[in-house]
Amino acid sequence: MFLPVIMSGGSGERLWPVSRSSFPKPFIEMPDGQSLLAKAFLRAQSLDNVQEILTITNCEHYFKTKSEYSSIVNEVIKTSYILEPFPRNTAPAVAIAAHYAAKMYGKDAILLVLPADQLIEKTADFAKAVAEARKLAEQDYLVTFGITPSRAETGFGYIEIPAERIANSENSYLVKRFVEKPDLATAEQYIKDGNHLWNAGIFCFKAGVFLNELEKHSPELSKAVELATSGLDFVQAAHGYAELDSKKFAEVPNISVDYAVMEKSDRVAVCKCDIGWNDVGSWNAIGDLISPDDNGNRLSGEVYTHNSSGCLIQSSSRLVATVGVRDLVIIDTPDALLVADKSKVQEVKNIVGQLKENGHAASKEHTTIFRPWGCYTVLEEGTGFKIKRIEVLPQHSLSLQKHEHRSEHWVVVSGVANVQNDEQIFELLPSQSTYIQAGHKHRLSNNSDEVLVIVEVQCGAYLGEDDITRFDEVSQFKNALHCGIK
Amino acid sequence: MFLPVIMSGGSGERLWPVSRSSFPKPFIEMPDGQSLLAKAFLRAQSLDNVQEILTITNCEHYFKTKSEYSSIVNEVIKTSYILEPFPRNTAPAVAIAAHYAAKMYGKDAILLVLPADQLIEKTADFAKAVAEARKLAEQDYLVTFGITPSRAETGFGYIEIPAERIANSENSYLVKRFVEKPDLATAEQYIKDGNHLWNAGIFCFKAGVFLNELEKHSPELSKAVELATSGLDFVQAAHGYAELDSKKFAEVPNISVDYAVMEKSDRVAVCKCDIGWNDVGSWNAIGDLISPDDNGNRLSGEVYTHNSSGCLIQSSSRLVATVGVRDLVIIDTPDALLVADKSKVQEVKNIVGQLKENGHAASKEHTTIFRPWGCYTVLEEGTGFKIKRIEVLPQHSLSLQKHEHRSEHWVVVSGVANVQNDEQIFELLPSQSTYIQAGHKHRLSNNSDEVLVIVEVQCGAYLGEDDITRFDEVSQFKNALHCGIK
Repeated sequence: MFLPVIMSGGSGERLWPVSRSSFPKPFIEMPDGQSLLAKAFLRAQSLDNVQEILTITNCEHYFKTKSEYSSIVNEVIKTSYILEPFPRNTAPAVAIAAHYAAKMYGKDAILLVLPADQLIEKTADFAKAVAEARKLAEQDYLVTFGITPSRAETGFGYIEIPAERIANSENSYLVKRFVEKPDLATAEQYIKDGNHLWNAGIFCFKAGVFLNELEKHSPELSKAVELATSGLDFVQAAHGYAELDSKKFAEVPNISVDYAVMEKSDRVAVCKCDIGWNDVGSWNAIGDLISPDDNGNRLSGEVYTHNSSGCLIQSSSRLVATVGVRDLVIIDTPDALLVADKSKVQEVKNIVGQLKENGHAASKEHTTIFRPWGCYTVLEEGTGFKIKRIEVLPQHSLSLQKHEHRSEHWVVVSGVANVQNDEQIFELLPSQSTYIQAGHKHRLSNNSDEVLVIVEVQCGAYLGEDDITRFDEVSQFKNALHCGIK
Repeated sequence: MFLPVIMSGGSGERLWPVSRSSFPKPFIEMPDGQSLLAKAFLRAQSLDNVQEILTITNCEHYFKTKSEYSSIVNEVIKTSYILEPFPRNTAPAVAIAAHYAAKMYGKDAILLVLPADQLIEKTADFAKAVAEARKLAEQDYLVTFGITPSRAETGFGYIEIPAERIANSENSYLVKRFVEKPDLATAEQYIKDGNHLWNAGIFCFKAGVFLNELEKHSPELSKAVELATSGLDFVQAAHGYAELDSKKFAEVPNISVDYAVMEKSDRVAVCKCDIGWNDVGSWNAIGDLISPDDNGNRLSGEVYTHNSSGCLIQSSSRLVATVGVRDLVIIDTPDALLVADKSKVQEVKNIVGQLKENGHAASKEHTTIFRPWGCYTVLEEGTGFKIKRIEVLPQHSLSLQKHEHRSEHWVVVSGVANVQNDEQIFELLPSQSTYIQAGHKHRLSNNSDEVLVIVEVQCGAYLGEDDITRFDEVSQFKNALHCGIK
């Protein structure tokens, strides 16, 4: 059994304002319109002999992840999910995936751990590297992937390799040591010496070998993960998703798989490869994916420039105009705008820090919020009213609910709405509407095969999202609050 | 009779994206929250012996102008308007004002012509200068106002003065000559020599004297203006507004009052003054009105900065964040954003030029559109639907109308709506709604004393503003199309 595991954590704060804590880096669309997560899934799906792809992610992101996959998954691939109640670094996630694989497919099952927030442009070279890594994993190595550095990058960890390859391997080495992010002089020396590779965060190993090494080098973590997974229904995960218990998961140490196992084990090999790897670590990395115009500007959306050069400008729905500026990054979203100097894009994190400190919504959410049944967008909020555009996916339904303090007007703008309003059940066609009185039970459903779009005008003195009583849950999570189900 | 005349033309393209052709410079709010137009009106109103203020503006801006004045006009001031169907530079406007004053109050009536798009900060010094100018006007001078230059500005016209003052005047000189915008070296020489003043575009003279000089120096213009005003009902203007005939007005040459009269007449005096004059010619001039923070940033709205300095940042409704930038002007409006280098703000005109060339809406209108009865804001437009927030002023009404292709849902969010829907007439309270079927006559009115706010959801295959049949006009202009009355 060969099981790709997509690890979809990582907030990507440096990609704010497009990344938000509820819309993290894996969901961000690259200039070609495909999200990093979709790219990771396609990458895994295209490998040889893949029957299943396991995803480890936060429960809050389950529905959006599933919906990203739904349009690209092929008919032979099974998708399984293990959901974390909160982020806990890579070691716990990898260990849980290893437990899952060992339990479901035996200790010799081979895992390929893939972060969901990277780009790998040379697909064929990647497949070749994976094939080599699998061979080494069969020989009980813990295999990492090492990228030939193209510049003296100080933002990555490095892997030092010896002069000699592993016997019978194409391009793999026993790891001499892992090195933390170096300073510039050291990084330059690494490039010159040619004996250091970038640590890509991709791993391949037998489930049993990893778990043994984990027990040996990080016994405390090993025990905590065993406890956290003891009640986990792996069979249920294999057929959909299983959710980790938040109390038990909280006891698991928050450390990286490098620190917990890779840096300590003597069974670690590195497969040296040149796969067009890009960690998309800042807006500049995204800018590199867009062809520049004659003035070196990389533009997307509606942009007018005058006497401007070297800029990355991304507009979502508004007109952006620049006059006489150089080397700026301008990222426009419906509720927040970033203007940064290209050479300072790493410091975008600082803004996110300020926003978090102030509990600002723009660090958490976009104006469009994804839900299991679709999404909604707050168009405007004023004294006594809130206007939303609500999109309900085909064959989906919101929960039966009521509000104490607000009434709602629903106007169908496209598709067909199946409505329960108090005791009545009826259908609404485009341009038809209904009025939901405060205190009345109601449910909005879409029984058709096309997306339903309605405009909802809420009226009332209190319009908080927490004014809701649910009478059933369409999908019930243990950690419903985390998962933000309406 | 002493009649201040507010000339409210001038688009102020360099203040885009806040200025638009339907929302020109006079309407722009200064950092203290007051528009330039309101400031001009208050300036005129505060002068001695003022009973009436005449405004010459485009008919499109009449209602918004009236509404700007309504909250600041005192009980003794009468407001009168002459409306232009299109802009035609300053000479025609001043000549028309002079005809009005001569006809209504006699040839000796004294006019004070005030542009609506300037700041004058030293009110007492301005009043003193006006008093001196009036004295000279009584002696049949055409008086201009000359500002002692504070810098070698190349963007203004200059007035050269002789060494000797006019006898018995405090600070006034016979004008030697008017000079067009000089180059930098010339401007620097002017400052050094001390015999040149900035031409502020403010004038004071007897109606009859001006008309005589106009006839003498620009007979063609004089004749064309006579024709254009021949059918104009001045009495109606005095009691509200009168509108110029667009065919006749089109025949009037498009030239400035300086060129038509001032540069040619030998009766021109200049009153030298230091009145805190600011022509608000660019975003930098507005920035100067905001106190800087410790990093020299001048901020308004919700702005987060990190490692940024010397910026002017104005956000309307969204969060703006900057990282590592210097000396930028960032002006954010709901549908358009400007990012410019401080040293290049004059070139904003170039962007407006590009937008006009493309017929882009962002050169013409804001998302909020003002109407005689209030305003509306397009919140979202999608396939088959458009959502507006509509505000109706107390005791105002939209016209009785119908639409062929769209139905409308109205939800009251505050105030009380008086609705005619087909044959029915009824009242709607907050959170109540009505559905206007396509083809049905309807009217929205506000008979109360508080503002009415409704959300309108339009549905239909065609949602253009021109799908409207009106059965009466609440106010009827000859040039209704220009004036954009719904």
